[in-house]
Amino acid sequence: MRIVVDAFGSDSCPGPDVAGAVLAARAWGDEIVLVGPEDLTRDELAKHDTAGLNIRVVHAPEVLTMEDHSDAVRRKEASSIRVGMQMVRDGKADAFVSAGNTIACLAAAIFDLRRIRGIRRPALCTVYPLTFKPTVFLDMGATVDPTPEILMQFARMGAIYAERVLGIADPRVGLLANGEEEEKGTLVLRDAFGLLDESGRLNFVGNVEPKEAVKGAVDVLVTDGFTGNIHIKTAEAVASFVKRLIQRYLFSPLWSKVGLVLLIPGLIVGLPGLLLLAPGLRRFVKRLDYAEVGGGLLLGVNGVVIVGHGRSNAKAVKHAILRAREAVAAEVVPSIKAGLGV
Amino acid sequence: MRIVVDAFGSDSCPGPDVAGAVLAARAWGDEIVLVGPEDLTRDELAKHDTAGLNIRVVHAPEVLTMEDHSDAVRRKEASSIRVGMQMVRDGKADAFVSAGNTIACLAAAIFDLRRIRGIRRPALCTVYPLTFKPTVFLDMGATVDPTPEILMQFARMGAIYAERVLGIADPRVGLLANGEEEEKGTLVLRDAFGLLDESGRLNFVGNVEPKEAVKGAVDVLVTDGFTGNIHIKTAEAVASFVKRLIQRYLFSPLWSKVGLVLLIPGLIVGLPGLLLLAPGLRRFVKRLDYAEVGGGLLLGVNGVVIVGHGRSNAKAVKHAILRAREAVAAEVVPSIKAGLGV
Repeated sequence: MRIVVDAFGSDSCPGPDVAGAVLAARAWGDEIVLVGPEDLTRDELAKHDTAGLNIRVVHAPEVLTMEDHSDAVRRKEASSIRVGMQMVRDGKADAFVSAGNTIACLAAAIFDLRRIRGIRRPALCTVYPLTFKPTVFLDMGATVDPTPEILMQFARMGAIYAERVLGIADPRVGLLANGEEEEKGTLVLRDAFGLLDESGRLNFVGNVEPKEAVKGAVDVLVTDGFTGNIHIKTAEAVASFVKRLIQRYLFSPLWSKVGLVLLIPGLIVGLPGLLLLAPGLRRFVKRLDYAEVGGGLLLGVNGVVIVGHGRSNAKAVKHAILRAREAVAAEVVPSIKAGLGV
Repeated sequence: MRIVVDAFGSDSCPGPDVAGAVLAARAWGDEIVLVGPEDLTRDELAKHDTAGLNIRVVHAPEVLTMEDHSDAVRRKEASSIRVGMQMVRDGKADAFVSAGNTIACLAAAIFDLRRIRGIRRPALCTVYPLTFKPTVFLDMGATVDPTPEILMQFARMGAIYAERVLGIADPRVGLLANGEEEEKGTLVLRDAFGLLDESGRLNFVGNVEPKEAVKGAVDVLVTDGFTGNIHIKTAEAVASFVKRLIQRYLFSPLWSKVGLVLLIPGLIVGLPGLLLLAPGLRRFVKRLDYAEVGGGLLLGVNGVVIVGHGRSNAKAVKHAILRAREAVAAEVVPSIKAGLGV
């Protein structure tokens, strides 16, 4: 597989981006193409041991930043994001991965890869990190002001993804909302509810509250890019708040510190038990680590594009590349087209 | 203080509602008036030891359910929510507390208590549960489709609350958003950003992501009732997901169970340490318990109204009553009026 990786995507680029690409090349042996200003990218790559790895650099002199709007994206044809998209368009690569500005990636994907016929706006899609069974979640942040018709298209694409890629028969589709009743939600959501309810084409189960969503109440969870982004970022924020709570109440007070020291003999005595608990503990921590998610898939364009979190570390970039591999292997784009009949 | 409590508010009413009222009457010695169908309310009350408590029942034969819209609220004048609001309006009580339908409470408050002059829509306000220092958060779910002007009013009311009730000088006001840049957010949010930025009356710091909000980046966090509701409910959902993760990875697997048993001698040896850690652990658990929040304050009407979670248990109802006591004692309604100059 040939995967293009934006060397200048993440907030701390090019460090995590290049390191993640090296980790991925080592793990799966793919051909990795790093796009970015050539000298800077090569300098960064030189910090790693790349012997035996299939990594090359393609020059893209311009860089799109978090401040760049779609005008800048249109203008900066030599930016890493545009060059990466064009390589996918021209069949020189199978997928593009960036931890850069979501809106810039969206605009570039629309310019260079074009939308799938009939799709008005793409959505950023992920396998929901807050359930045990696979649940398709979209939109994580591509389209912040969708119309009800666009939400309906998100639902259709999500259902096709669930059915053809995850193998879920007749997937249950729900709208993320502040209550289960039909009249809950914003005006746009209520209209989308009506469209989905009447269409009859999807297994629409109605509105789903966050508490039900994390219990796996649906196979496809649909929302607009603003709410989806707040939802996912709130989950991350809560995790970081809990860490601070632990710090403040269990590690900082003097009595707690004394307590922790007094606990040490007990931990030594209990060592066999701790060793048996370790694998479960490891899996627990792994599930709470957003870096394991890697990035979202931009659904609705003619190519595989994975957009990672701006705060991505090397592990997150590596996992974003894993998401790209999975999407290519699962033939997501042809599947969506076949499902839409285009 | 005289507080009216809706005996038929919560999803499992009247059990938790009446039990919570009894707990509150015992804790703080207020006069508590339970409103609801008289016989049913008295039957429920009879299950408790109320000797020496100042609790009475006021008959309200009708009940508003989660399905009732504002038409039903207008019609059902003898419902517990309407009767409670009217007692506050007529000076027969200082505050009304309900764990019922938020939209019904909102409609009834507007009918019976009237909005504060100049305020277009009320907001459900809380002291944000995800920070260490007090942060005013609104709207939690009263107004799902506000205009930019309404969001601006929420910001003003929130700032007055922060200043006059919490004693925060020149409170920093932010909009909950999917990114810090001005152009982030929905169309309505972007317009609200412009209004707040230009007004010059508030200490507006711009857009705030969930991760910054939990770090205490602002004193007043403003959002629409839909996003605010999803934000809070997502936080609750993540907490319940983490509980399920612990169950699945640390308690369910056979090796983990054996590990936990083998840990027992260690825990006995470490007992002094555990005892010292206990107070911190208790505070930690307390901070994660949504029942401690109790309910939100309906800001923008002529009276103190606290709306609790439909899933409230007795402890949550008790704490909702505590929120009502605090709001009355802090003279929230006169403060907001004075701040608005009406």
